[in-house]
Amino acid sequence: MLIDTTDRHYEREFVRTFFTSPTAVEGEDDSAKMLRSAAQLRGMQAPDVWVPDNEDATAPSMREEGVENIVDVVAEYGADFPGEIHPRVVWHREDPELRYQGFQQMLRVATDDSGAIEHIDGFVIPEVGDIDDWKKADEFLTIVEHEAGLEPGSLSMSVIVESGEAELALGDLRAEMGRPANNLERLFLLVDGEVDYTKDMRAMTRTGELPPWPELRHNTSRGASAAGLIAVDGPYDDIRDEAGYLARMRENREKGMTGIWSLTPGQVVAANTAPLPPEDGSWLLEVDGEEVDLAEVDGKHVYDGDAVTIEQSGDTYTLSVGGDTRELDEDELREEVANMAAYVPGMDDIVDSMEEFEAAKEAGRGAIAMTQSATLVIDGVEIEISRDRMWDEATYQAAQTPVTLFQDVYEHRPDQHEELEEMYGEDVVERATAVGS
Amino acid sequence: MLIDTTDRHYEREFVRTFFTSPTAVEGEDDSAKMLRSAAQLRGMQAPDVWVPDNEDATAPSMREEGVENIVDVVAEYGADFPGEIHPRVVWHREDPELRYQGFQQMLRVATDDSGAIEHIDGFVIPEVGDIDDWKKADEFLTIVEHEAGLEPGSLSMSVIVESGEAELALGDLRAEMGRPANNLERLFLLVDGEVDYTKDMRAMTRTGELPPWPELRHNTSRGASAAGLIAVDGPYDDIRDEAGYLARMRENREKGMTGIWSLTPGQVVAANTAPLPPEDGSWLLEVDGEEVDLAEVDGKHVYDGDAVTIEQSGDTYTLSVGGDTRELDEDELREEVANMAAYVPGMDDIVDSMEEFEAAKEAGRGAIAMTQSATLVIDGVEIEISRDRMWDEATYQAAQTPVTLFQDVYEHRPDQHEELEEMYGEDVVERATAVGS
Amino acid sequence: MLIDTTDRHYEREFVRTFFTSPTAVEGEDDSAKMLRSAAQLRGMQAPDVWVPDNEDATAPSMREEGVENIVDVVAEYGADFPGEIHPRVVWHREDPELRYQGFQQMLRVATDDSGAIEHIDGFVIPEVGDIDDWKKADEFLTIVEHEAGLEPGSLSMSVIVESGEAELALGDLRAEMGRPANNLERLFLLVDGEVDYTKDMRAMTRTGELPPWPELRHNTSRGASAAGLIAVDGPYDDIRDEAGYLARMRENREKGMTGIWSLTPGQVVAANTAPLPPEDGSWLLEVDGEEVDLAEVDGKHVYDGDAVTIEQSGDTYTLSVGGDTRELDEDELREEVANMAAYVPGMDDIVDSMEEFEAAKEAGRGAIAMTQSATLVIDGVEIEISRDRMWDEATYQAAQTPVTLFQDVYEHRPDQHEELEEMYGEDVVERATAVGS
Repeated sequence: MLIDTTDRHYEREFVRTFFTSPTAVEGEDDSAKMLRSAAQLRGMQAPDVWVPDNEDATAPSMREEGVENIVDVVAEYGADFPGEIHPRVVWHREDPELRYQGFQQMLRVATDDSGAIEHIDGFVIPEVGDIDDWKKADEFLTIVEHEAGLEPGSLSMSVIVESGEAELALGDLRAEMGRPANNLERLFLLVDGEVDYTKDMRAMTRTGELPPWPELRHNTSRGASAAGLIAVDGPYDDIRDEAGYLARMRENREKGMTGIWSLTPGQVVAANTAPLPPEDGSWLLEVDGEEVDLAEVDGKHVYDGDAVTIEQSGDTYTLSVGGDTRELDEDELREEVANMAAYVPGMDDIVDSMEEFEAAKEAGRGAIAMTQSATLVIDGVEIEISRDRMWDEATYQAAQTPVTLFQDVYEHRPDQHEELEEMYGEDVVERATAVGS
Repeated sequence: MLIDTTDRHYEREFVRTFFTSPTAVEGEDDSAKMLRSAAQLRGMQAPDVWVPDNEDATAPSMREEGVENIVDVVAEYGADFPGEIHPRVVWHREDPELRYQGFQQMLRVATDDSGAIEHIDGFVIPEVGDIDDWKKADEFLTIVEHEAGLEPGSLSMSVIVESGEAELALGDLRAEMGRPANNLERLFLLVDGEVDYTKDMRAMTRTGELPPWPELRHNTSRGASAAGLIAVDGPYDDIRDEAGYLARMRENREKGMTGIWSLTPGQVVAANTAPLPPEDGSWLLEVDGEEVDLAEVDGKHVYDGDAVTIEQSGDTYTLSVGGDTRELDEDELREEVANMAAYVPGMDDIVDSMEEFEAAKEAGRGAIAMTQSATLVIDGVEIEISRDRMWDEATYQAAQTPVTLFQDVYEHRPDQHEELEEMYGEDVVERATAVGS
Repeated sequence: MLIDTTDRHYEREFVRTFFTSPTAVEGEDDSAKMLRSAAQLRGMQAPDVWVPDNEDATAPSMREEGVENIVDVVAEYGADFPGEIHPRVVWHREDPELRYQGFQQMLRVATDDSGAIEHIDGFVIPEVGDIDDWKKADEFLTIVEHEAGLEPGSLSMSVIVESGEAELALGDLRAEMGRPANNLERLFLLVDGEVDYTKDMRAMTRTGELPPWPELRHNTSRGASAAGLIAVDGPYDDIRDEAGYLARMRENREKGMTGIWSLTPGQVVAANTAPLPPEDGSWLLEVDGEEVDLAEVDGKHVYDGDAVTIEQSGDTYTLSVGGDTRELDEDELREEVANMAAYVPGMDDIVDSMEEFEAAKEAGRGAIAMTQSATLVIDGVEIEISRDRMWDEATYQAAQTPVTLFQDVYEHRPDQHEELEEMYGEDVVERATAVGS
């Protein structure tokens, strides 16, 4: 039987969410209960990539049953699941037994009579080591494809980077992917696994929290960029700390890492939403290295912290920021505040600016100045500021990233259209899907 | 004469301290005085690795005498020295004369009739460049072993990473170590040398202090992790600034770099102690990105800074952190404070948690929640908080790092047993040496 | 015609400034107006490297005319221009048409009858990818040299690192430059291009500002160090924010990246000046991780912020830093303040210290202590502090970097002699040009 593989969609450019579910939980009436409920998520609650997790999330004694559950649940619900499906199997760069088990798990899932494989986009391989170890997994996938009668290369492979070796392999990826004796072109996601990475690096923190590992995330993001893949950050354990999760994702996006692991449907919603531009523009103030969002009140942007104070006495203003106090005249005050302030464009603004630049370019101009003006209120004092930014081709293309992301989401996740239209309004959605193409 | 090499102990997994002593000081009655006193250090004052330093710490004109001093002092005291002994010789990637001198120095130390080599575990090679330069030093060591009648590979080699080339070589190490034409398996420590690295990178700071070089430390730690070696940070010059030294080590441990250079016996004590878990658990508060330790008073944990204030008025609390003020009800206050607080487990706690998880695993559970509760006192207001953390296999293994370190220290440093038992109590020491194995 | 290439000066060790000018601006009477005015800059306003920019700064439709303008303006003004001249041509790792255009642009500039090429030191290639892509540009330069009758290797090549691939290539450079089938020894500058890099990495910030990319800058600086090249940071867009530009350059120097892009003559002055040691020494206080410069008043160094307060009551001092308050006696206060304080040496001090160390070394001493004393005034309280620093050979050589930079500037930029003598005084300039050689 040759299975039709047309409903795979490898053309996704972004993945926001990587959501793992245990494949089999002991002591439940239905050990597949969590799989079954995850498979029925829709809209912003459904991840871009769903990972039935037959490795760390599932007890070793339950993994046999886990394979059966994957097959059953995906056969039943897979056709309607709005995201991609990538089960995680066991693997370890230092353990041939685990690697053989991983191979067997993939083979069983792929060749099951239920046809579940028709809805499975690829597999996730954890604990990889050197690039030669990645090739072993790749070869097993090639064999699996052959045994299951699938097109060569039709199953994607994603890896969890959770060792120094794997981090180093990220630098070889681009060159190795072209070699004729492997099928590494099947690579899809590069996912950081900071818990095991921390163990492998033998790092310690006082509180047991994970170190931030900025270099690992940079190297993963760069590896993905150089090899045309997608970078995803590891799990954020403290599932009640939504502010921390948001801050982590913001940091990641500044590194070019758009995706993140999600452990709960709540984290999925947060992570599906966070990388999209906000509905409305807003202003922030940079105070002592921290960004403070200003509240909009009657069209003015109000700072209500107390780390910045301004006292007026005649024409003189005393501006105090943290421990630093200065006497300024009105123009100097405006300049200081303008330097502290920044505008966070909303989706509408971004689309406007892009359209404006496109028009300028057609008229033969290579660069235009975009101006942003506002009234800020700090400590009761109103300050009119305006900021220019030069836009050239490069600025335009960089600004395009969130819009391209939006378009990618819009194309591949029809189940989120309604929520997106509620968020932005139909008109903005329409213009945002059209701009820049 | 075939020398018995059985008292070498290459199985050390961790090195906390790398202590250098000048090999010959001019103008002293006994030019070997500093070597002699270092050789007699014991307990927490004795380093894990002692480095008679015939390079930068010793004036070029004294290095001939330095070789003799090494031989004499190690022959006399080496058998009883509790740590490993690794003399540093001269070397430079761009200077064949220095490399030849380094070769001669090792040869003289190794073939001296005193039998000093019996107590020497390896040599430290500074100023290495590309991996091919490392191989030159490795080859000299192979010849030295042969001439001295030692087993091939019995002398270890540690390098100082203090150039861009050497930093890049860290990425090749794992692959190169397996090649048949070298003996790079003898590698032991990868030590950063930030003073010369700063020069080599032509970096400048306003005050002449060293830049922090976080990427270098990451890459060294990762190189060590990938090649099964041990990463050690460079010297901390400001020997009176113990708080700075402790902060640096904490940063390093978060990068997986457990060892550090020590310039004085005081620094040795600090660096031998710092990576071990504290005796007792404690709480800290994260305020504006800084961790503030709370003092325990009558079983409560008291914040006595003034960056956080709480004012109560009826059921409403006004929480002010830095410049940020919010009105909260009791539950919200508890949540805010819980998010700011973190528990620093003591050795006892770590062993408890590990034992608890081991029991859960045997009972077939893959993950359990560990809860930590406490009463915090902030600005006179008492707040009961409790924090959960999920433990799975990966968490367990990551938490194991400090315990493995402790066990490694306990195994290889009998001279520190007494101090360790004083610090933790005999019972905790006993359980800590048994857990997780 | 064999052109005389003697006025090329490849021996520059440092480049402070990389100043781009559009080659042709539409709608002006003279489309070369900006080129012409840049060509006439002198002294601190003139960059070390001037880049007639026939890529992003110039509209695509104007680039044909841009080539003519480069040739005309350089033929007329090039002989007298005090810095090096490196036009930027078009290139893209993914676009053979752009690469061919870049080749043609270089060929036209080099073979023009005006002899402009006599004053051109090399070309800047943007948007490079893997090292194999760099080799394509190198090969075109080899052909251009041949066609123009230039010595092989006489034209240098600088690249803009603005993709993940190019960042990875930085690690291969040292090994690849030695290969016989290329002329990559012609490489000169490694310039970061963060705008396009951000796009290529698909990174996003809320405000559209560029992410800081510390790892990219480290890798560029390390690549330059390992291959004997010069690292230059990309453009700082917010041209009115001089404080931000200075802070960025300070950060860069701590990474060993001495050069930076300049977009205006004002930025050129700032960037030519910033890496040179200050005229006079000064003190700073580190408060909450930030460095606050102290003002000198009557030989004392005064802190006038309000983040640090001291209250005296009898023999007891209450020191408050940020939210942290402590009771100290006089000696403890002195120690605390000494730990917070740091001395920023002026050119005079650096030369003094180097001379002192040179004398000590000649007298056979390998290390000496340098002491710095001062009276600090904090919150009205006077505190006498003194700080020691050990100087050994390595310290000496690291301290030499700013002096070597100064000497390099002095040698290659006679047009800046007058301004340097005004800044430092003739005597200091004389000693600074002599020391350490």
